[in-house]
Amino acid sequence: MDNRPIGIFDSGVGGLTVMREVMEQLPYENIIYLGDTARIPYGSKSEQTIKKYAHQCSAFLKGKDVKTIVIACNTASSIALDSLTDYFDIPVIGVIDPGARSASKATENGRIGVIGTTATINSYAYQEKIMEYRHDAEVIGIPCPLFVPIVEEGWEYSHVAELTAEKYLTELIEHDVDALVLGCTHYPILRYTIKKVVGPHVKLINPAFETAKDLKKLLNEKNLFNENYDIPRYEYYATDAPERLRRIGGNFLKKEIDNLYEIAIDNLS
Amino acid sequence: MDNRPIGIFDSGVGGLTVMREVMEQLPYENIIYLGDTARIPYGSKSEQTIKKYAHQCSAFLKGKDVKTIVIACNTASSIALDSLTDYFDIPVIGVIDPGARSASKATENGRIGVIGTTATINSYAYQEKIMEYRHDAEVIGIPCPLFVPIVEEGWEYSHVAELTAEKYLTELIEHDVDALVLGCTHYPILRYTIKKVVGPHVKLINPAFETAKDLKKLLNEKNLFNENYDIPRYEYYATDAPERLRRIGGNFLKKEIDNLYEIAIDNLS
Repeated sequence: MDNRPIGIFDSGVGGLTVMREVMEQLPYENIIYLGDTARIPYGSKSEQTIKKYAHQCSAFLKGKDVKTIVIACNTASSIALDSLTDYFDIPVIGVIDPGARSASKATENGRIGVIGTTATINSYAYQEKIMEYRHDAEVIGIPCPLFVPIVEEGWEYSHVAELTAEKYLTELIEHDVDALVLGCTHYPILRYTIKKVVGPHVKLINPAFETAKDLKKLLNEKNLFNENYDIPRYEYYATDAPERLRRIGGNFLKKEIDNLYEIAIDNLS
Repeated sequence: MDNRPIGIFDSGVGGLTVMREVMEQLPYENIIYLGDTARIPYGSKSEQTIKKYAHQCSAFLKGKDVKTIVIACNTASSIALDSLTDYFDIPVIGVIDPGARSASKATENGRIGVIGTTATINSYAYQEKIMEYRHDAEVIGIPCPLFVPIVEEGWEYSHVAELTAEKYLTELIEHDVDALVLGCTHYPILRYTIKKVVGPHVKLINPAFETAKDLKKLLNEKNLFNENYDIPRYEYYATDAPERLRRIGGNFLKKEIDNLYEIAIDNLS
């Protein structure tokens, strides 16, 4: 048994969709969430910069004595997972592998779509990982940079959202994909609109859900469950504008955000 | 006469619309442009963080021996101008005052709209400055966070752009504004779509154009013109992903971007 918290980080509020799945699937675990809101978004930045930020976020969580680190950000997972795994002496898991594995199982015709930020798609992390699980797969990646601001505006059911989804996703429909990875933490909030556009026969894969399942398995294997069945403690840290995290984040987490602290970005090294 | 360059900074590529106006109105001036692409966008960050970033950008330009600093970013202008003016011993001008003055002159019915990022609108900088010039004005500010990613996607003439503009701007039409400040560097690229939505009787104010006019006046008054009529030198610095600045920036500047250098963000203090 291990009552240390689980550490989760993301470039901003989006990773709260991952935290929500972890809270549901592991209801007795303490969790520390870090949103690097001072430097959001990671998705349009260079690999070198994203790696540096991911290391700083992980070091902060390690300093809080977490037992494992979850990279909730697809961009950071796709670029920094190996480097963080090498560097830190606690298990680190990202969202790419669970999402890719699930998509490989879900497809019947072997044609899989992946949508995400420009950096996630250009890194080919999902595409390569899916090919490892299923050599004959045909994977089509499409960057969808407008989806994040649409979700942050609360416009997920709007005509703008639908029209934007049509512009981005038509190519996937033409390629007859039957599984689609929602490769950015914000996208599960758009799932009804995306489903409407791609059609009911396309299975949507939510890496947040799959990652929480993997995390549960990992804690079980390594005997790391918290077996103190008290009400767990949730702590939130933001590197800038914590009130924005509280306001927008509530919609992602479907829960009030208390125990929220601002930390200076200079303390992240 | 003073052949030192003019320094211009922005959170990213958007400020190139200001640089373009300066190049057109002051064709003999050398210019150094700094895009703080590692930390873009400023618009959703806190005042304290924006001030810190603006000081670091200005210090970098001062280190390059510029004769004046232009804050091309509306967000940074609205929050950091006074503090930069106090700190640096060279003239610093922002885009808010020129834009506000021009809007005050352009309106006939006294009802003025301002659109910009969330931080710019919430700072009330345009609203307050317009009221200084015209006490009886009624100013309505609307944050339009989707406009920047629409421009960066190159979707400025799309149905998505038009529908988004309708969602944001209907309130301004209902309030019968007859002048509208494009209070974000990206928005002039959307001016045809915006005009189509608000109607031909609404005058669009481009602060980039007004700022270049003010800069020319300032150089004249302080006797700072470069009177060396050679081909001027333009230098560009980006704190991250310079290739993205070159690729997207060309569309803002309507000119090839050469002499482009990447600088480390840690060197900005």
